[in-house]
Amino acid sequence: MSFEELKERYSKFLSRRDKFRNPISFWDGDLAPPDLIGLEVGLPNENLFPIKAIDLHLVDKPFDDKEAFVASMDRYDNPEGLPIARSFQYSETRGMFPLINFCKKVIGTVNKPAYDEWDVLLSNGSSDSMFKIFETFCDESTTVLMEEFTFSPVISNVQNTGATCVPIKMELTTDPAKQGIDIAYLTHLLENWTTIPQYSHLNKPKMIYTIATGQNPTGMTLSMEKRRQIYALAQKHDLLILEDDPYGYLRFSPYDPVHPLKNLYTDESHSLTVEDYLQKMLVKSFMTLDTDGRVIRLETFSKLFAPGLRLAYIAANKFIIERLLNFTEVTTRAPSGASQAIVYTTIMALGSKETAADEMDAMFLGWIKWVMKLASAYTHRRNVTFKALYETEAYKKNFFTVLEPSAGMFIDIKVNWPTPPTGDKKELMSQLNKIIIKNGVKVVLGHKMAVDQDFSSDSADFLRLTVAYAKDEDQLTEACHRIGKGFVELFNM
Amino acid sequence: MSFEELKERYSKFLSRRDKFRNPISFWDGDLAPPDLIGLEVGLPNENLFPIKAIDLHLVDKPFDDKEAFVASMDRYDNPEGLPIARSFQYSETRGMFPLINFCKKVIGTVNKPAYDEWDVLLSNGSSDSMFKIFETFCDESTTVLMEEFTFSPVISNVQNTGATCVPIKMELTTDPAKQGIDIAYLTHLLENWTTIPQYSHLNKPKMIYTIATGQNPTGMTLSMEKRRQIYALAQKHDLLILEDDPYGYLRFSPYDPVHPLKNLYTDESHSLTVEDYLQKMLVKSFMTLDTDGRVIRLETFSKLFAPGLRLAYIAANKFIIERLLNFTEVTTRAPSGASQAIVYTTIMALGSKETAADEMDAMFLGWIKWVMKLASAYTHRRNVTFKALYETEAYKKNFFTVLEPSAGMFIDIKVNWPTPPTGDKKELMSQLNKIIIKNGVKVVLGHKMAVDQDFSSDSADFLRLTVAYAKDEDQLTEACHRIGKGFVELFNM
Repeated sequence: MSFEELKERYSKFLSRRDKFRNPISFWDGDLAPPDLIGLEVGLPNENLFPIKAIDLHLVDKPFDDKEAFVASMDRYDNPEGLPIARSFQYSETRGMFPLINFCKKVIGTVNKPAYDEWDVLLSNGSSDSMFKIFETFCDESTTVLMEEFTFSPVISNVQNTGATCVPIKMELTTDPAKQGIDIAYLTHLLENWTTIPQYSHLNKPKMIYTIATGQNPTGMTLSMEKRRQIYALAQKHDLLILEDDPYGYLRFSPYDPVHPLKNLYTDESHSLTVEDYLQKMLVKSFMTLDTDGRVIRLETFSKLFAPGLRLAYIAANKFIIERLLNFTEVTTRAPSGASQAIVYTTIMALGSKETAADEMDAMFLGWIKWVMKLASAYTHRRNVTFKALYETEAYKKNFFTVLEPSAGMFIDIKVNWPTPPTGDKKELMSQLNKIIIKNGVKVVLGHKMAVDQDFSSDSADFLRLTVAYAKDEDQLTEACHRIGKGFVELFNM
Repeated sequence: MSFEELKERYSKFLSRRDKFRNPISFWDGDLAPPDLIGLEVGLPNENLFPIKAIDLHLVDKPFDDKEAFVASMDRYDNPEGLPIARSFQYSETRGMFPLINFCKKVIGTVNKPAYDEWDVLLSNGSSDSMFKIFETFCDESTTVLMEEFTFSPVISNVQNTGATCVPIKMELTTDPAKQGIDIAYLTHLLENWTTIPQYSHLNKPKMIYTIATGQNPTGMTLSMEKRRQIYALAQKHDLLILEDDPYGYLRFSPYDPVHPLKNLYTDESHSLTVEDYLQKMLVKSFMTLDTDGRVIRLETFSKLFAPGLRLAYIAANKFIIERLLNFTEVTTRAPSGASQAIVYTTIMALGSKETAADEMDAMFLGWIKWVMKLASAYTHRRNVTFKALYETEAYKKNFFTVLEPSAGMFIDIKVNWPTPPTGDKKELMSQLNKIIIKNGVKVVLGHKMAVDQDFSSDSADFLRLTVAYAKDEDQLTEACHRIGKGFVELFNM
């Protein structure tokens, strides 16, 4: 596919507002002599910045407070990297090239798209990515499909354009082959759109938003087979797939109830290699199936580095990236150069410890090893949490089921009602929540993350908890015990 | 004015799209016991970040390569400041409170609004500020007035909403009382809007965008008297005033042709105090006249710290800030915490060297002293540039006039045509530009920064050059001499 073919195929997806975007440039492309003095651009000289160098004190692994090494940025040093004269200056709207190239390396190695004309664009975090994508594709007349439970702020991102969100039924099950988007439901929805009473007044959807791995809030991961089926439906009904993947790298090693603290990442008898992690542990992106260029993938440094950086990236076909870049020119322009430099300098430092064919390979290797250490830390916290939940009286009495996730930050606890509730489930869930808060734990109720609370009223009887934020193992364990007590209190009332 | 009164007064200014913005939150406000364990928020623990501390190596003044001191951020230290556990975490969308408070201190001390119910909001640079403001106030039916020459990317920010930009005639003169927006023209425009043929199909303007001090590209600064007149017109015709002020602090000391390198900032016999600088050198913002809450002021750290931070702030009445914050929730959310922490930590370090009533006063003092050092560096570069321009043969032959600016990064050179050109001025300017490029200098042509090139065809015969970016004095001097030669070549052809 050439850029022109992509343009022809995907222009019809653009929002009405996309055409208003005509960034103005006042730079000429005139040829100039080599000793040209540039007095045209409104850039401050880098010697007007109060900072001349920055040292980053890095740790070797999560929860290790020892300083492992120092990565430094000077004003001009290391022109291959992002020295301060560059990163603290105005810079390329799409992101600085060294970091862009690294992001391309990650996509191209871990989730190589099934076509060639793809590109990446940095953004100010995935919230910013989504805002820009929905603004570029959605109008008041647009319908966007999304999992019935989702990261609810996305709903407001869609609604900000005037568009409508429609939920897709999910299978909330521990069976890895079945969990996530209900394919039969989705097929029926798309095949019969115009005759379904509650949706017939809406345009046929043009986009599916999905958190395909370690879904928020459910922790569900779509199997490759389900991904293939969804991609085929997207082809048949000409949908874009917006794949949000903040948690995909945080893949847990399998849980072993007999040895609850077993962790493949740290198991010395196994020694999980980078290759094993990439090929066997991770689930492949929709991009790897994407022969048409219809997948937009969202990656972020928020969970793998730090959220406060507000740094993320978008991978998509070149035409889509061009439209998003065009929008970025009239909105935020480049993301923080300080954030970009901190990430890039850290990854260069991680790479400097690796042996590889070239510097980029070394950086990739160093970065993935860091990410594996994170996945290991999350696996350990998952282990601690499961162990603590499974040792409660409430679990032994079958008051709840843990929807065991295979990746991510979230664990959902599904209520097993002793007798099917006759009253309002939402009311009972709210009561359970009050008891749990009284016992000293704060969680999120399923229905709070439903696209449509009525649509999901039957399946919203779960609690979402995160293993990511707690201070330590003891706090996680104590919280699980308190949750267990809450269930006992509710069901003994 | 209460928030409700502001809401009543300013709701009618909101764009149609403002009402689509309903950020979704899933946090309850439930009361909880003091030992509550929070498993609800999807935040990674700060020990999952690879960085535990950052050192900033700071200089004492611009163009000084010596390290003056080191300012450090640790993971938890200094909870009054912005430790990494906080700044690298998800944080308040409006900006972290310590930095917000500092920004309020700056506005409240330097340009105290003439009413009480104002507030500030951080953004990802002034381009982002403007995008959010125009999206909140402009629709396809909106008309925005702006100086006929302006920072041209703003035009695309306005047009992105579908709105229309209309130019205001400027007086391009070295007379400080007269320069900038032509008040008679503006008055006539507003009084006769519906009967002016070229504008009668447009709605009456609801906003003026102005770079009131050290205007880009003209370098003009509006006198206080002109500001009062414009504010009175805004009151009469119910306009918002969007005051963009990236350069206002970069105020030059007066130029002395007899002692061209004289610089009040460094003149030991004068010793300019912070008080002198704030009260006598700076021109007061429209906010100081604003009894109604109709002024929106844009400040930025781009020119005073570094552009790559992408960090700026907006000051306006509380209702407007609330609407902008609401939009920010569905777009970028918080600006880079790394950028916020770098700025705040630096300012804390600057403040630690000052003696003052409290820490905030000390920080303000330390910051303003840094800003004065910048203004001094810009004054020196202005001096070097004027001196070099005035010693050219072209100047001595009266081929050009320097539109002497009193602040900012830009100097405009107005062409003095020996005989009024009969042909197309734009064509002649393009010819001059080609000659100057051939001689080895790149500048910007006036018409490239015109809102409407036809409207400004008579007055666009100037070149804009910046003193900010050149490597050193020698390069600035050489560039000015080359420009002079260009004029001689053009007029001797």
